[in-house]
Amino acid sequence: MNEIWQEVYGMQGELTKRRRDLHRYPESAWTEFRTASMVATELTKLGYEVHLGNEVMDEKEMMGVPSAQILQSCMDRAISEGADPALVEKMSGGKTGVMGIMHFAKPGKVVGLRFDMDSNEVVESSDSTHRPMAENFRSTHEGCMHACGHDGHVTVGLAVAKLIAEHKDEMSGTVKFFFQPAEEGVRGARAMVASGIVDDVEYFLSGHIGFNADKDNELVCMTGGFLATSKLDAHFTGVSSHAGAAPEQGKNALLAAAQAAISLHTISRHGAGASRINVGVINAGTGRNVLPDVGEIKMETRGANTDINNYMMNESKRMIAAAAAMYDVKVTTKEVGGAPACELSEDMGKEIYNIATASGQFTEVVPFISLGASEDCSYFMDRVQRNGGQATYMMYGTTLKAGHHNMAFDFNEECLPKAVGILVTLAQHFGNK
Amino acid sequence: MNEIWQEVYGMQGELTKRRRDLHRYPESAWTEFRTASMVATELTKLGYEVHLGNEVMDEKEMMGVPSAQILQSCMDRAISEGADPALVEKMSGGKTGVMGIMHFAKPGKVVGLRFDMDSNEVVESSDSTHRPMAENFRSTHEGCMHACGHDGHVTVGLAVAKLIAEHKDEMSGTVKFFFQPAEEGVRGARAMVASGIVDDVEYFLSGHIGFNADKDNELVCMTGGFLATSKLDAHFTGVSSHAGAAPEQGKNALLAAAQAAISLHTISRHGAGASRINVGVINAGTGRNVLPDVGEIKMETRGANTDINNYMMNESKRMIAAAAAMYDVKVTTKEVGGAPACELSEDMGKEIYNIATASGQFTEVVPFISLGASEDCSYFMDRVQRNGGQATYMMYGTTLKAGHHNMAFDFNEECLPKAVGILVTLAQHFGNK
Amino acid sequence: MNEIWQEVYGMQGELTKRRRDLHRYPESAWTEFRTASMVATELTKLGYEVHLGNEVMDEKEMMGVPSAQILQSCMDRAISEGADPALVEKMSGGKTGVMGIMHFAKPGKVVGLRFDMDSNEVVESSDSTHRPMAENFRSTHEGCMHACGHDGHVTVGLAVAKLIAEHKDEMSGTVKFFFQPAEEGVRGARAMVASGIVDDVEYFLSGHIGFNADKDNELVCMTGGFLATSKLDAHFTGVSSHAGAAPEQGKNALLAAAQAAISLHTISRHGAGASRINVGVINAGTGRNVLPDVGEIKMETRGANTDINNYMMNESKRMIAAAAAMYDVKVTTKEVGGAPACELSEDMGKEIYNIATASGQFTEVVPFISLGASEDCSYFMDRVQRNGGQATYMMYGTTLKAGHHNMAFDFNEECLPKAVGILVTLAQHFGNK
Amino acid sequence: MNEIWQEVYGMQGELTKRRRDLHRYPESAWTEFRTASMVATELTKLGYEVHLGNEVMDEKEMMGVPSAQILQSCMDRAISEGADPALVEKMSGGKTGVMGIMHFAKPGKVVGLRFDMDSNEVVESSDSTHRPMAENFRSTHEGCMHACGHDGHVTVGLAVAKLIAEHKDEMSGTVKFFFQPAEEGVRGARAMVASGIVDDVEYFLSGHIGFNADKDNELVCMTGGFLATSKLDAHFTGVSSHAGAAPEQGKNALLAAAQAAISLHTISRHGAGASRINVGVINAGTGRNVLPDVGEIKMETRGANTDINNYMMNESKRMIAAAAAMYDVKVTTKEVGGAPACELSEDMGKEIYNIATASGQFTEVVPFISLGASEDCSYFMDRVQRNGGQATYMMYGTTLKAGHHNMAFDFNEECLPKAVGILVTLAQHFGNK
Repeated sequence: MNEIWQEVYGMQGELTKRRRDLHRYPESAWTEFRTASMVATELTKLGYEVHLGNEVMDEKEMMGVPSAQILQSCMDRAISEGADPALVEKMSGGKTGVMGIMHFAKPGKVVGLRFDMDSNEVVESSDSTHRPMAENFRSTHEGCMHACGHDGHVTVGLAVAKLIAEHKDEMSGTVKFFFQPAEEGVRGARAMVASGIVDDVEYFLSGHIGFNADKDNELVCMTGGFLATSKLDAHFTGVSSHAGAAPEQGKNALLAAAQAAISLHTISRHGAGASRINVGVINAGTGRNVLPDVGEIKMETRGANTDINNYMMNESKRMIAAAAAMYDVKVTTKEVGGAPACELSEDMGKEIYNIATASGQFTEVVPFISLGASEDCSYFMDRVQRNGGQATYMMYGTTLKAGHHNMAFDFNEECLPKAVGILVTLAQHFGNK
Repeated sequence: MNEIWQEVYGMQGELTKRRRDLHRYPESAWTEFRTASMVATELTKLGYEVHLGNEVMDEKEMMGVPSAQILQSCMDRAISEGADPALVEKMSGGKTGVMGIMHFAKPGKVVGLRFDMDSNEVVESSDSTHRPMAENFRSTHEGCMHACGHDGHVTVGLAVAKLIAEHKDEMSGTVKFFFQPAEEGVRGARAMVASGIVDDVEYFLSGHIGFNADKDNELVCMTGGFLATSKLDAHFTGVSSHAGAAPEQGKNALLAAAQAAISLHTISRHGAGASRINVGVINAGTGRNVLPDVGEIKMETRGANTDINNYMMNESKRMIAAAAAMYDVKVTTKEVGGAPACELSEDMGKEIYNIATASGQFTEVVPFISLGASEDCSYFMDRVQRNGGQATYMMYGTTLKAGHHNMAFDFNEECLPKAVGILVTLAQHFGNK
Repeated sequence: MNEIWQEVYGMQGELTKRRRDLHRYPESAWTEFRTASMVATELTKLGYEVHLGNEVMDEKEMMGVPSAQILQSCMDRAISEGADPALVEKMSGGKTGVMGIMHFAKPGKVVGLRFDMDSNEVVESSDSTHRPMAENFRSTHEGCMHACGHDGHVTVGLAVAKLIAEHKDEMSGTVKFFFQPAEEGVRGARAMVASGIVDDVEYFLSGHIGFNADKDNELVCMTGGFLATSKLDAHFTGVSSHAGAAPEQGKNALLAAAQAAISLHTISRHGAGASRINVGVINAGTGRNVLPDVGEIKMETRGANTDINNYMMNESKRMIAAAAAMYDVKVTTKEVGGAPACELSEDMGKEIYNIATASGQFTEVVPFISLGASEDCSYFMDRVQRNGGQATYMMYGTTLKAGHHNMAFDFNEECLPKAVGILVTLAQHFGNK
Repeated sequence: MNEIWQEVYGMQGELTKRRRDLHRYPESAWTEFRTASMVATELTKLGYEVHLGNEVMDEKEMMGVPSAQILQSCMDRAISEGADPALVEKMSGGKTGVMGIMHFAKPGKVVGLRFDMDSNEVVESSDSTHRPMAENFRSTHEGCMHACGHDGHVTVGLAVAKLIAEHKDEMSGTVKFFFQPAEEGVRGARAMVASGIVDDVEYFLSGHIGFNADKDNELVCMTGGFLATSKLDAHFTGVSSHAGAAPEQGKNALLAAAQAAISLHTISRHGAGASRINVGVINAGTGRNVLPDVGEIKMETRGANTDINNYMMNESKRMIAAAAAMYDVKVTTKEVGGAPACELSEDMGKEIYNIATASGQFTEVVPFISLGASEDCSYFMDRVQRNGGQATYMMYGTTLKAGHHNMAFDFNEECLPKAVGILVTLAQHFGNK
């Protein structure tokens, strides 16, 4: 399998082409119908056993799913842009996850590889200096953009699948590919994991393009410091009244929402480790001279571990209810996302470090970085580890044109073959243990 | 002039038709290009000396004017819907006020009559029980609706102008018609009054359809209790940061806006009379996991007199600045509307009461009601009174389908001839003094 | 009875002496043991039927009574300063109200006169320019001071009782004297009125020295604009924790109290009339580095009428509970004072105006002033009026050295005979109706 | 020097007696006149070169010093309780620090040992189960109590000084004893360090009784996790007014203080490490019906490092100013305490671990604990380390009757000889390096 690195460098054109196609047709969380259709079709062609829809998603664990109306229009759009109608049908309701399995002749371990597929809700830059604009692969879905590199992740995943299929005689055990929807907003992993499809995995790997790894030819073996997180929407409903003539007849949903926003930020810090709170969005009221009867906030908590995040979320829920009671308005809350914290399997990380270093393909191999952000890959990792397996999360270095989620985000496509090469190498290595 | 009442009842069909045309083409504040064009054209036909645009508006006193882009698209729309392009051109920049003057042969007083023209920003009901829907005169401008009866006001004003012109030999002195834009948000009167066109008026009359006068065939002679008011927008600009990794690097515009909203409501009541505060709208933040860098509030103050309103606004401005300082964000504020309080001329009110009662056309004649709301007609009234004239504000009774500003608002069109009749009668009476 | 005015001016020395004795021994709310003992003893001597303690107070309606320990020490103090131990015993528990009744031979009406007895909790000025200091009648009870003129009120009441007793043959009907404890904090009137002793009164009179009547020789016949009011204490109990090591283990009573204070001031103004809110005192926390487990606020509401005050208090109670819920702390509230709004009997006021004017004893007779404050005399007035009687509240004009409740408060003692003379005159007049 | 351990165990009676004397006469921060006088007298007797007052304190760096009046009364008290008047005079202004120096014949290093002397402001338990009560050494200074074990620290310090003096021939280098005032509120160390007296120290040791070391016969070699901290008082001054009649004329210092308290708790967490905020005390307002014109808060910040603490304090100062501006009141702030974070010298800690373990005198020797609290010993440690020296902070294990700062706090006096023994051993060891 020494020739892998040669092969992957030879795929640069193919990788770039795939990534740019995906970039032109970004699909945000739970609407990855075209992307998932392409993935399923490709995996089938390559000889994988493919599962999708209800087979890989526990519907009741799906968080923050768009309305039926939005889902339908995205399904229609996907079909009009080349998706297989039969596959799209199976993914109805947003169940856009795809799994591909291949068992190898030689006995070995079950290795899981996970790739996230969704785009951001960002209006992509139309500046002429933005390469997707200049080279004509800017998003054609206005308001959606692959601004976090998941187009690259899907591209890598399919290329890894292709190489492994081509080299299946050199592989041992079993490989499972997980193509996950709705990583943005940490909404999708929980439902895939809850379906049980990851329960037999013994070595699990995922990774990301370019967070805190901003050099070309850099590889981070273990990315940690994932914060547990929960995402919540709260909707306040009061009673409007004429602000001049009868203010006492209103029940002020704007003040309830504003008070919730402020109070949430007063939750005590936790002595046992990092905690976070953010009310990222508030909208309330209908007109200047009307005592406001509607209000909403979109908030999130985080914690260095799941207990701390639970503390933050429990405090938050009580405070939101109290803010509503303060102004005698009704409130409903909905959890729309979340992820646990997770540990990294250090033994696995050390092996990756040794293999990557030995490969000679990376200018810089970094054992560990701490991220301080959240990623719902932690659901996968946590499940694998609880079942006795090992899991880690890598970072594929690249220079960036602008930060993640920025309208001018773009990465160096030369990172793609590097990621493919190391993943194929590691899948072979861990399958063979 | 005894036959006036017969004539106005005969005009019911014409009035209804005019009102429904206006209802189909509602134009919100400062965009009344089609309405004003129709008014100017009609007044000219009837023999009035007509002034508009710069002649009747002091541009620098116009508050809360939409962007040039919006104005342009509304001008284009108006022309496509029948407005006179030459007139529209004169009204560019939103200067949509119109004045019509007629001098009569018999000497007498200068009587001013004022009608407001703008619609609300409300999506009109499309329920089949809503008469404009059922009888096909629902708004064709989605998001705009005559939900406050100004379509009726314009209709009444033009009919009064027509009858007075037809009866000009029976009139004395001078009559001035003021067709005002942008009453909603109390934005338009100030600029018309500031132009000086009302300075010679000795008797001033205006009125409204159906506030606190919810019976058909009812007339209120004096509507008082207008509260002085100011309208303000505040925009907060902070610095965004990753809410998980670096919250300390942000400057939180959402918390500044929320704090301003709450603090404003803590302004001390005023011992000398009624005061009001309302933050009607708040919007802040761009995404759940981003420390928010933008925020805005739309607020208003009111006071039983101008001093109290000034107290409320001075407190408000300081508090908004302090809320920004609290979170180290920048804030800009803009006054987007306002009206003074005003007194009613009681002698004039008593004369109206006697005339209306004597006419026998109203089932109920009410000397006075107190409104507890704001109306920028107070600018006109205050100016006339300061110049030694008299002014009052009537209310034309009607049953309503739903309250003012409601998406299902509708009035009984039989109130229109009643309003026309009493105004013509009063214009003749006061001109003759 | 024409010689009354001569007699009262002859009593100046006696009045001054009595007032200064009372001024030296001020007793705050519910501890007026020495004052009430003196009143009861004097009234008995003058031939009045005297009732006190349980006979004139409904114990369960007494609000804001000090602790048993404080009451006991004040009882001991009173006895050591000359109070009658037997009378003090009857007043145990703070039931310091006294009523004196005299029935006259000639039939007539029942006239009620009410005087309040309690001092303020103010440290009296020891400046040499402060007359009580200079002339040696400064308070000997440190921290208590007659800073609201109730020493004058008691003085006037006893002198009126003396003159009426001396002239009983010229009187008609019945006179009832009510010496009320605990007007400060509007705590005492409710319990006296609830005992039923005022139920037969047909004409009721009370008054005050020097509020908004700052001229010597001035008399105000009707003082109105009393606001209904409620007084509430709230105690918050949380859990303390080390603010550095384990902030998450605390439940923050300080933040709950502070939040309550702020939120209370955001209660909507009432469209139907004046409302007021004040959190006058907040205390919370035990040490800088301890997450605070205790907090309290002392607050009050007011309203132009009792409904508005009830609205304010209902909102307040809900908000206080919500502030506690916000920080997961316990809260207990206690109503410690209150008074309704009341109307003035205008006919009675006009008669007083005519009599006072005709007497020629006042340089200025003012028919009416509006106060904008609260006085629990409104309990008496409201009860009398509900039973079909008439009631009003006068103001005895005087120049002042400093405002009411100020440590340098002092009034011109020449106002005392004026107040005595008009009250005797009016008691005779209304008894004779 | 092997016999040291025997000697210290033989001193148990002497140690207990000393500690109980100190316990009976607790002196809070900056008033340790009797304690310091005793320390200086003892050190002088033992042959140390003694410095105090201006020689060891930089007056302008003293934080949170009581008023001149309080200092004077404490000086008088100390003299009446046996302090040397001449020494007390040298400590006027609260400069109660004492340093004792001894140079040994054998060359070696400069070893610094630091002991804090002040008591807490706590009312000591008078429960019969509280040993100081039962055995008659409860505080005689009501409101002051040694509730943090500093009586033990002084006792240990003097015993170490005595043993070292007795064994001076076996010592090398120089030993410096620092007896520090005002550790509570982290107020005293800064001024001693600023005087320069610690600048030549090469090995620095201090320690505490019983924090997170709750077993008898336990020794912690390195206590870390000290948080940098700052302590601030803020006084708000507004304008009072009658809450019923003229609320608009007031400037509300209570709401400013309450708002500051709440806003401070909304300061963003810091991505780089632990931060803390606590408003421990709020007091505002003078009476329920007076719009409040005074308010104060006592607050503190902490940070995992000095930068984070500075971030917290900078945010705090801006927010306090903004809260004052919100209500148009004046505010003055005063820093009344503070301490930097500091690192532990790990090499020194390891040596202590080895020596303590080898001594066989401790059941449990713990290399390191993290405290999560603040200690102004960090000023000493930071200075020594910046000058190239090494420093650490130990913990002397003991069972406790109640937690530190609790009114029932008491420790097992058998910890005292253990602490003396290890300190003498280490002073000899490090002096000899």
